[in-house]
This record gives sequence, C-alpha cells and structure tokens, in this order.
Amino acid sequence: MGIVLKNILAILPNGAKDEVKETSIYIEGKEIVAIDEAPADFVAEKVIDGKDKLVIPGLVNCHTHSYMAFMRNVADDLSFMDWLFGTIDPIEQQMTDEDTYWGASLAIIEMMKSGTTCFNDMQMNIHQTTRAVKESGMRAVISRGLVGSGNDEAGQIRLAQAYEERDAAKDCDRLSFMLGPHAPYTCDDGFMRIVSEEAKKNNMRIHVHLSESESEISQIQEKYGLSPIEMADQNGLFDVPAIAAHCVQVDAKDIAILKEKNVSVVTNPASNMKLGNGFAPVPAMLEAGVNVCLGTDGAASNNSLNMFHELSLLTLIHKGVNKTPQCVSAREGFRIATINGAKALGLEQEIGSIEVGKKADLAILNLNTPSLTPRNNLIAGLSYSANGSEVETVIIDGQVTMENRKILTMDEALVYQKVNEIIERMGLDKKEY
Amino acid sequence: MGIVLKNILAILPNGAKDEVKETSIYIEGKEIVAIDEAPADFVAEKVIDGKDKLVIPGLVNCHTHSYMAFMRNVADDLSFMDWLFGTIDPIEQQMTDEDTYWGASLAIIEMMKSGTTCFNDMQMNIHQTTRAVKESGMRAVISRGLVGSGNDEAGQIRLAQAYEERDAAKDCDRLSFMLGPHAPYTCDDGFMRIVSEEAKKNNMRIHVHLSESESEISQIQEKYGLSPIEMADQNGLFDVPAIAAHCVQVDAKDIAILKEKNVSVVTNPASNMKLGNGFAPVPAMLEAGVNVCLGTDGAASNNSLNMFHELSLLTLIHKGVNKTPQCVSAREGFRIATINGAKALGLEQEIGSIEVGKKADLAILNLNTPSLTPRNNLIAGLSYSANGSEVETVIIDGQVTMENRKILTMDEALVYQKVNEIIERMGLDKKEY
Repeated sequence: MGIVLKNILAILPNGAKDEVKETSIYIEGKEIVAIDEAPADFVAEKVIDGKDKLVIPGLVNCHTHSYMAFMRNVADDLSFMDWLFGTIDPIEQQMTDEDTYWGASLAIIEMMKSGTTCFNDMQMNIHQTTRAVKESGMRAVISRGLVGSGNDEAGQIRLAQAYEERDAAKDCDRLSFMLGPHAPYTCDDGFMRIVSEEAKKNNMRIHVHLSESESEISQIQEKYGLSPIEMADQNGLFDVPAIAAHCVQVDAKDIAILKEKNVSVVTNPASNMKLGNGFAPVPAMLEAGVNVCLGTDGAASNNSLNMFHELSLLTLIHKGVNKTPQCVSAREGFRIATINGAKALGLEQEIGSIEVGKKADLAILNLNTPSLTPRNNLIAGLSYSANGSEVETVIIDGQVTMENRKILTMDEALVYQKVNEIIERMGLDKKEY
Repeated sequence: MGIVLKNILAILPNGAKDEVKETSIYIEGKEIVAIDEAPADFVAEKVIDGKDKLVIPGLVNCHTHSYMAFMRNVADDLSFMDWLFGTIDPIEQQMTDEDTYWGASLAIIEMMKSGTTCFNDMQMNIHQTTRAVKESGMRAVISRGLVGSGNDEAGQIRLAQAYEERDAAKDCDRLSFMLGPHAPYTCDDGFMRIVSEEAKKNNMRIHVHLSESESEISQIQEKYGLSPIEMADQNGLFDVPAIAAHCVQVDAKDIAILKEKNVSVVTNPASNMKLGNGFAPVPAMLEAGVNVCLGTDGAASNNSLNMFHELSLLTLIHKGVNKTPQCVSAREGFRIATINGAKALGLEQEIGSIEVGKKADLAILNLNTPSLTPRNNLIAGLSYSANGSEVETVIIDGQVTMENRKILTMDEALVYQKVNEIIERMGLDKKEY
C-alpha cells in the first residue's frame, strides 16, 4: 500500500545536523521511497494530511523488560537488591505464560502510544513476547535473560532454550535476537565465556546489564578484583557488538574500555534514580565518543515506558548534576533517542532517521497541543515540553499501527482488563498509603 | 447546578494517610457538599459516571510565570544570568498587552489539560493575566513582580500599580493576590523593607524568588554579607506568611530560618536542572518540617507547565542525588503537589484535598490508559507513570472547565494560532539544529 504524509513538518537529518522542514513523505510497502517529490509511478492508497503535524523517526527504546509492565507500581521505595530479590523475583516465580503475554502487550501499547517503534527487550519467555510483538506490528530485538555458572548445565540448558525460542519466531522480520547474559552478579566468569563464545560462533550481538548499583561493583570487585566492565571485557563479551544497560558506576578506565570495544551504552535515568543507583556519567561517555542510547528499563523500576519522559530526564538531569545548562542538549537527546539507538541494535541502515530507503517507522505528532505551542524550536519541544500524548499516529514497517490515538492492531481495553486481573489474582493491589 | 461523580475511585484523606476508595462525590454550587451519601435535597443536574475513573484534588502549581508560555523553548542551554538578562529580558521589552494575554491563556490551557486547578503566578501585567484567569474558570493567586531600590521612586510606582491592578480584578473570587518582590538581586534591602511593611499593613502574603543560583548567592553574600534567605529575613519578608521559590542553594542555617518563620518553599526541579542550578535539598527541608510545595516555574525555563511531569521529577531526582530509594515517596509527592500547595497559598480550608465543605477543584483521570494500568497503587501511578494526559475532565470552583479533554471555557485553536503568531512576529522560530 502506498501511503503519503502530505505537506508535513518533518525532522530530517541534514549532514551532521537536523532540520525541521515542511515536506511530503512517500511510503511503499515497508519503506520510505521518496521525500519531497513523489516517485513517478506512486499510487497513494492512503493520504495523511500533514497540516498541524510533525513527523519524527519512531523512538528506539534500547533497554526494557516488556513482561514487567504488569508489575508497574508494585515495588516502590526499595533498595536495588531488595527490589530485585525480595519483590520482583517472587512475583516472577508465580508468573504464567499468559501473564507474560499480557504484560508484553501492555508494554507495547504504552510504547506505541508514546511514539516508540522499536524496543530492545530482555526477558524470560520469548514465545509469549514474540507473540505480542507479531500481533501488534511492533519492531523488537529480543534476548532471553540468561543466568548461570560455567560449572553446571543449567545455564547451557537456558541457552539452548533461547535458541529454540528464537528459531520458533523466525517468521517475522520485525524481530531480531541477541544473547542476553543477565549481569556479572547472576552469571559467573565461566558462563560469561560460554555465552561470548556462542555469540561469536553464531554472529550474534550481546545485551547485558553492567555496573548498575554500588553493591554490584563491590561484589564483583571482591570476587574477581575487577570492575563489572573489566569482568565483562575479560570474558569476551565485548568481542562481539555489545549493548550494556546502565553503566552508572563507571570510571575513566571503564569508559575507555567501552569506547575502545565499541560498546553501546543504554542509559536508563528514571530507573537509576528510582532504585537509588544515581546518575550515569553520560556527558563523560559522550565526550569520550561512546555510542550512548536511551532506555526506560522495565515498568517495575521506572515505572513508565514513555520514551518522551525518559528523554526529558536525559536532557535535564545532567544539567543539574554538572551545574552546566549546556550538558546533553535537546539536539543530542533527539539523536540519542533515535539514531544512536538504531546503531546500538545494528539497525542503523533500517531505522532511526527519516531517509529514503529506510523502513517507515514513524511517529506523527499533533502540533495543536499546548506542549508543542509555539512551534519555534520543535527539537527542544520533544525533550523539554512534550509528554508523549502528542503522538497521534504511528507507522511501523510501513503499517499504520495507531491512528488518531487508537491502536489498530490490538484490543486495548482487553489488555487493561487482563493486566488488572493478574494483579488481583496475585493480591498486589494497595488501598491505603 | 448539582453535579455528582457517581461510583468513582477517589483519593481521600484518611487522618495522616490517604486512601483510594470507591465513592460518590456531590457538588452543589462551588462546593463539595457530600461524599458517599447524597444529601437529602440533592438534585443532580449532571451525573459523571465514575466507571474506570479516578478523581483527585486538582494539582496546585505554586510557582509559575504564566505569560512566559509563549516563550517556551526560545532560550535553551544558557546559564541562568545569560538566560534572564541576555534573552528573556529583551523579549519582555517587546511584549505587548495582548502577548501577555495569549501567553497566560496558553499556560492555563496546558495546566488545565494536565490537572492543575490553581496556580501561583508572578508576572508583569495583572490586567491581562486576570482577564485570562477570569475567562478560563481557573483559580489563581497573582503577584506583580516588583523590582526596585529603596532610594528611588520607581519601585514604589510599581507597587502602586500592583494595587491598582489588583483592585480592578476584585470582582472574581477565584483570584487572590500577594506582593511579589522579585529577588534579592533585583530588589535592594531598602526596597525589600518597603515591600514587607506594605505586606504587613495590608495583610498580604509575599511571593519571592530566593537562593536560585550560585551567582545569586555570591552576589548577595558580597553585597550584604548574608545568604539570600538571611537577607530576606532581616528585611522583614518573613514577618508575613511567605512563599519562597527555588531555595536550591540553602544550608542548614537557612533551613532553620525557613522553618522558624513558617516560610513555604516551592521547589521547581525541572527549572533548577535546566538552568544548571542543581537540586534543592528537599529531603532535608521535609525532615526539618518545612512546608514544601511544588511549582513548574515559567515555560521559558522548564519548558513544561505539566505538574505530573514535575511530580515525577520531584519523586525521582532526590532518590538519585541521595542514592536512597526511600527519598520523597510517591505519597509525600502527592501531598506536596496538592495540600502543601494549598497551605502555602493560605487556601488549605478551600482546596488541596477532597473534603466536604471544600471547593470542588477536581481532576478526573481515565484509568483505561497504559500508564495507570494496573490499578494496584494509584498514588505511585500519579508520580511514577502518569504523564498528565490521563486527565479527562476538570472541575474548578464547581464549574466543569474541561470535559473529555475539550476545554469548555476557552478557544484552544485560537490560542495556539495567536501564540504562534507572536513567535513569528518576534522572529524567534528556529529551523536548524
């Protein structure tokens, strides 16, 4: 189907800069086939009037745990290890396949409604997550969270399971896969080496949590005499393209390793604050030339999957921490939330900017909204004043998945009902404060 | 007109705690006349079905500059003094009466659409701001920003003007007024004394900026050998009930003064980060028993007037700064954004909580939204996952001012158009980044 976005303001790359320009965008099948001028043989089966609209590349959420959306607001005001091992783990023990599916569905609805068109997910049940991704029309990169030791077979069994689940989902080209060794405190050095060898052998990327909390640092330092970044590096994790979530507690030596090994760092500002882990040194990583991208983390620790919220945090907090209003500008934030994310996932030829030949992964925002009025500086608006609800229509892989804020691919009301039922079943609702 | 919110989830005060409870709320004229059971003679002229809805007290934005909404995103990534004197001041020089009116109107639309029902405003043109407040149905507390010296008459002329403008707006009981000496770096000690004497004589409250930037601290320290808090205190500003915006750079001695003199502190986290001023020591002020409330500041330095965004910042950043996930809980945040604000404005008998006898200033949220699903912990939801767009209907002073996200009292499209025209006229739009 040919879709044209007619006379619309668009954020387009212009060399090293970006520009806001009125144009028309032509989509054929899954791709953007032309910008400005219609191709000779173009037949528009759908025309989207661009009056009072802005189109941006869909945001790329580079670290989340989609199934956790049903755990939103269940475990607040707890330390990181109490949160993970005292509250989240026990909930995960009682989680069924269907719970994963409804959780992932809720996550996808929330992300789509706030302009995210691709997410990088680490979770426990690929079957149910890919089921939700396929139905919804979303784009996703999936890793099964692997925990294990080099000395027993449990980790290898999980690895085999990850391959099997991946193979069962190979019929959808909006899906790709990474290997996901969970973290240095849940995978020992022997297991990290097994996973990195597998990644090399199978030409896969790695998605890992690194240097999230101070307790992780001291634990890994005590066990190996290394920082988590060094431990990951020494066990081969960075010998394939890797994406490291968090990197809050990193020093200059760690940053040098991340840069040298071309590791992409996903910063998760809300989750890092909420769990009391602090602020990642994003300005220093950007300065060193590390590819920094942005993620929400899961809804159990954020508790929002809205990338506009995350973008506002990214572009505000480092100004406060460094007492420097020039830190992480709106323009940098925009690239971090789009093209840098695409690079981190190895998808920069496909998504992350509006260009001819790329996939049509687009979010269309309504400019007749208070947060985007006046229209003087729309890239600043995305970071500093938008809240995500300005997103009206979403196109992913050339398919209109949301139109005028109605999700076309999923039954929103049913998802809300099912998720509320999980919480009631598990007895997790709260009445008094 | 009698309005009933029928079978609705409501956040109600329950002694020192809050509870989420299904109930019905009865409104007659401007007030909440009953909760749970209808009064004997109640005639419902309007029934709002509470299914899948949550009603909360309208949020109280305790520090803003409404006219500045037209300056949203015009001056980013600048130091505080460059921002104020290099960019904002010159724009204010070319501002017309109508610009103030359209700016204030845009601010009111943005606030209403995100659940704010009362704001505390410091500005330059009371006539035009009160015109927008009156038309919109909003509640507001207004101060004219006063700058001056004890040695010349300019300040006193401005003071006379503030009284005159106030008197012209006395026909609307949703409006009240304070005196607004701008800041210690724009009002000298002599002028501060004149203003505080006026406040005592006329039984008025004071709204002032204090201890916002490090340059302010060093300037006031150099000039008077005092901190801005001490300077304000010594010149009588705290002899009447006062509300001090920012208080970012305050030490234990300053906090003790704020507590002893019952000064309410408005924290403005977004603005303080964005201008590189840092993080106010909110946990220490709460610990000391200071009445802390919440404000967005103006759209030229935030750049959002959405109190849900501000609430999320308030409840996230101090956890990060103090590496303590228990800092500023969602429950504290809720009170800071509602009843504490009402107290700061001297309106705690009228607004800030849902209670019989208080004004009907209410925001009704749609719970069939991803950010508020599941419904397990709705107070956490307000801080950590809501973005403000869940607010569907707003009632202020018993009047429905927004219904199903349509503002009933103002012409939204006209306001957006007029504000865009101001920016074009002033040549403030930007195309390349």
